[in-house]
Amino acid sequence: MMSSLHDLSDLRICILGGGQLGWMTILEGRKYPLTFYVVDEPDAPACRIADKCYDPRDYRYAVDSSDIVTFEFEHVHSDALNYADERGKLLPRLSSVVLKRERWLEKEFYRKHNIATPKFYIHDDLNEVISTVKNEFNYYTVIKRSRGGYDGKGQYFIKSKEDLERCIDVLSKVKDVLIVEELVDFDFEASLIAVRNNSRFTNYPPTYNYNEGGILIYNYGPLAEDGIVKKMVEITKKISDTLNYVGVIGVEFFVKDDNVLVNEFAPRVHNTGHYTLDAATTSQFEQHLRAITGVELGDTSLLSYGGMVNILGLSLSEVPLDVLRFGIIYWYHKKEVRKRRKMGHINIVGRDLRDVETKISNVMGILYPNGVKPLI
Amino acid sequence: MMSSLHDLSDLRICILGGGQLGWMTILEGRKYPLTFYVVDEPDAPACRIADKCYDPRDYRYAVDSSDIVTFEFEHVHSDALNYADERGKLLPRLSSVVLKRERWLEKEFYRKHNIATPKFYIHDDLNEVISTVKNEFNYYTVIKRSRGGYDGKGQYFIKSKEDLERCIDVLSKVKDVLIVEELVDFDFEASLIAVRNNSRFTNYPPTYNYNEGGILIYNYGPLAEDGIVKKMVEITKKISDTLNYVGVIGVEFFVKDDNVLVNEFAPRVHNTGHYTLDAATTSQFEQHLRAITGVELGDTSLLSYGGMVNILGLSLSEVPLDVLRFGIIYWYHKKEVRKRRKMGHINIVGRDLRDVETKISNVMGILYPNGVKPLI
Repeated sequence: MMSSLHDLSDLRICILGGGQLGWMTILEGRKYPLTFYVVDEPDAPACRIADKCYDPRDYRYAVDSSDIVTFEFEHVHSDALNYADERGKLLPRLSSVVLKRERWLEKEFYRKHNIATPKFYIHDDLNEVISTVKNEFNYYTVIKRSRGGYDGKGQYFIKSKEDLERCIDVLSKVKDVLIVEELVDFDFEASLIAVRNNSRFTNYPPTYNYNEGGILIYNYGPLAEDGIVKKMVEITKKISDTLNYVGVIGVEFFVKDDNVLVNEFAPRVHNTGHYTLDAATTSQFEQHLRAITGVELGDTSLLSYGGMVNILGLSLSEVPLDVLRFGIIYWYHKKEVRKRRKMGHINIVGRDLRDVETKISNVMGILYPNGVKPLI
Repeated sequence: MMSSLHDLSDLRICILGGGQLGWMTILEGRKYPLTFYVVDEPDAPACRIADKCYDPRDYRYAVDSSDIVTFEFEHVHSDALNYADERGKLLPRLSSVVLKRERWLEKEFYRKHNIATPKFYIHDDLNEVISTVKNEFNYYTVIKRSRGGYDGKGQYFIKSKEDLERCIDVLSKVKDVLIVEELVDFDFEASLIAVRNNSRFTNYPPTYNYNEGGILIYNYGPLAEDGIVKKMVEITKKISDTLNYVGVIGVEFFVKDDNVLVNEFAPRVHNTGHYTLDAATTSQFEQHLRAITGVELGDTSLLSYGGMVNILGLSLSEVPLDVLRFGIIYWYHKKEVRKRRKMGHINIVGRDLRDVETKISNVMGILYPNGVKPLI
């Protein structure tokens, strides 16, 4: 049982993965008397500000030297994730990671626990895939690889016979299981960021999300408290409780009329929760640290309306300083610019949703004068 | 003229002094593509997170290697301050530092520019001091050394003949000029944090401050917009404009009925502006960086009511984790605990002033169960 800050100062937190999520976790964590290790290459954003950076090949040493191991991304360093879990140090626990390693396990988890999700079929034979696309969904589907999918990777959106035919070649080369999912004609996408520890669950209000090509472009909120929001909270609580989850969790939804369908969950801090750094009492990053270290969870209420615009595939010289008139920049200091790569984001606060929307639209116009398409 | 983030990425900012103010400036500045150097001992809080830390003896090298030099504290590294100003790199400029090196110059500055400040006399002879204390103020004074005073250091509060007699011995040893000032029986103390660059002045709303023994214990706000606040803004703008100031400035006031008197100004980010990290759209630290790098100033509006409690003279094991139920901790990672030393602070936000006051009172009760007196 911890009683003073001194107990925190004994804790060495190891973060597997050194991307922007780990970077923001350490930035927020620096306010606490904690020590941060990161497992990633030395030029990774989080490694640049960690107390120590471990080469991924030395993950055993990193885990052994740490008191608590967490991760900023569930799709890397799988040996390290396994090893930390075996040592009883991993939070959130491996049970949530396992569901993300194979998308079909995540989908089956929803089915088993009666959690509404788009209709789906799991196939390991291309002919079955084709037949399902045709006969069950009349070509209106998204085909997803079971492994390694995030930010729209490994997903194929089909709306016609021709779309399907264009994909056949690629799909025939896929070795893992494929999921054929109903393409939901949603009214909007939303997500909910929540946090759970051994004694409590609490959530931030959900946000509207705008994705293109499977990658988040911007989001903002909060959504007005109503029946839909209530359903999102219930679902997120059910997922968290079922997994006996500890840490921050992000759940993405499709909303159509009064219906709420889970798209997927992320067992970590989430891109749609970045606005909490500036618009909420406690940020999702600090909240995650509170949860895994056993400190009382922070207040999740918002101080204002807020949102965020991702900076995708742009170099420093392609980001006009003008954007700083509308918000707060977070530049991730990544070594290389790549197409679709998240290079930074702009956090926005406002006095109401309209104000936030206007600022987002201004920032979008400055960052992407030719639209976001060419960059993703 | 800067146009993109790339122009910022070329800037190396040198901060003279590595205490908590420099530390929070770098924490906030990490979001920008900026490089930070610090001049201080390697175990100073800001040195721990700087890109490079320079030994104070190497200040010339630090200044020469930097594009912009600023300072987190005006009373140290005077050679470095002078050198940076000579090189045209110091912001805010030396003209404001000079007024802080000799308190009598600051007081004369107020007199010259018709800025209301407590009545004062400047003496370099102890007999004159004694006579002024007796005859002008009837023993109700504060005697201040001209040099090196901050956080109540070098100040002697006198309310009676006996108080004066107790001080005579110490005062007789003081070599510099003494200021004998009217002891103002104020209703409350307040401060205003503002920021100015070459084209614009803007301010945060002022806060109520509670000091003991000349050191800030807690503050909160905002004060309701009224004639008093208007006067504070006018005075702060006048000081800033007169000094052709660039950066964040903090001005402390005594308020008595409708009168506003300047106690002193600080040419830097200020302890009473720490709450802006959590309760304002743009923090005072980011704001200072925007001003000195030439980026458009950020929005100074508050997102909520807010405040702050200083952690004075307490070690990690003397800070119960319970305080985290009421606010956000900033632990400065100082190597040694000393009496009166600022070890960290708790930021607080709330839905109204009453809510913030209640939380401050809870935090005070947890941090200082025997009152703050024994620690300062």
